[in-house]
Amino acid sequence: MKTPSSLLLLTEALRHLPGVGPKSAQRMAYHLLQHDRDGAALLGRALTQAVDQIRHCSLCNTFTENDLCEVCLDADRDATLLCVVETPTDQLMIEQTLTYKGLYFVLMGRLSPLDGIGPKDLQLEKLIARATDGVVAEVVLATNFTNEGEATAHYISETMKARGLKVSRLARGVPVGGELEYVDAGTIARAMLDRRAT
Amino acid sequence: MKTPSSLLLLTEALRHLPGVGPKSAQRMAYHLLQHDRDGAALLGRALTQAVDQIRHCSLCNTFTENDLCEVCLDADRDATLLCVVETPTDQLMIEQTLTYKGLYFVLMGRLSPLDGIGPKDLQLEKLIARATDGVVAEVVLATNFTNEGEATAHYISETMKARGLKVSRLARGVPVGGELEYVDAGTIARAMLDRRAT
Repeated sequence: MKTPSSLLLLTEALRHLPGVGPKSAQRMAYHLLQHDRDGAALLGRALTQAVDQIRHCSLCNTFTENDLCEVCLDADRDATLLCVVETPTDQLMIEQTLTYKGLYFVLMGRLSPLDGIGPKDLQLEKLIARATDGVVAEVVLATNFTNEGEATAHYISETMKARGLKVSRLARGVPVGGELEYVDAGTIARAMLDRRAT
Repeated sequence: MKTPSSLLLLTEALRHLPGVGPKSAQRMAYHLLQHDRDGAALLGRALTQAVDQIRHCSLCNTFTENDLCEVCLDADRDATLLCVVETPTDQLMIEQTLTYKGLYFVLMGRLSPLDGIGPKDLQLEKLIARATDGVVAEVVLATNFTNEGEATAHYISETMKARGLKVSRLARGVPVGGELEYVDAGTIARAMLDRRAT
C-alpha cells in the first residue's frame, strides 16, 4: 500500500517547521486535507509570498518588504542611540513602552555555542558597520537576560567599547509590582548591588 | 511600528495548522524566514500541490491522487470483506500485519458529538452505499477502542445489521507479550468474558 506522493511530500515538508516531528507532520497533513483545504491553500500562498517578499532591512536587519524598514526611515528618531535586540518581537515590546526614541539593530538570534551559533551567524559585522557610522554615540544592549542573551551582550559590549562607543545595558532589578518574598535571590542580589540614590 | 504585511499574513496562515497558537505561529514564521527559506518555499509548493492533487478515493474514501486508490484497484483482494478504519494510518497498521486481504473503508474521523462530528460529517452514506453493493458480505469494524471509536463502531454496526450484513469487530483482550500484572482491569475483564476454547 503506497501513500500518494504529494501527501508524502507534504508530510516531509511540514517537518521543516520547528518542533514538528513525523507524527505531528502526518496529523497536520491529514487535518489540512480533510478539514481545512482553504487554510492549506492560503498557507501555501502565504509561504510563497513571504519567501518572495520578505528581506532584511539593510540598516537594522529586521524583516521588511523594502530596502529599509519603517523605523529606520523615520526621520524623527534619535540617530545617536542604537538599541540591540534579539528579535522583532523584543523590538515591539520596547516600542510599546514609549520610553525609547532611538534606532534599533535586530540580531535575529543570540550567540549560542551549543546550537552552533557563533558571531559569524549573527551578522555582527553588519552591526559593527552600523554602529560605527559616525552618528551613533551610544549602543543600548537589550538582549534577553538569559545565559545566551547575557553572553551576547557581553560580546557586543567588548566589541563596541574597543571601537570607542558608549555601551549601556537595560537595568536589572526587582520587576515593577514585584514582592520581595516572591522574587528570586539572584534578582534581589543584583538589585542590591545596583541600588540607586533617591 | 508595523510588521510587514506578508509576514503578518504568514503568521495568520500558520494558525490553520492544528495545535498552533499565535506565539508558535510567530516562532515558526521567524524560524522559516531566518533559518530555512528553502524549507518554507518547499512547504509552500507542497501545500499547493497537495491541495490540488489529493482527493478522496470514490470507493474507500482514503486520500488518493486518482479516482480510485491502489488498494481498491487490486483485483487480488477479497471483495466480500470490508474493513472500516478511522484513518489511513490505521489502515497501514492493519496492512502491515499481513492478516487481512479484504478491502477497506476509511472514515477519516470518528463520531465525536463533543467536537460536533455527527454521522453526516463522517460520510456514512458513502459507507452504506459501499457496503450494500451486493458483493460485501462482512463488515469488519476496526475503529479505535477509545470511547469515540467504540461509539462509532456501535453506530455503524447497528446501521449495517439493519441492512442484513454480517458485522464483526477486532477482538479485545490481553496484548501479545502482555503481563497480567501490568494490564488494566477493564482489559482483563474483557479477556475473561471473551475467553476462547483452546
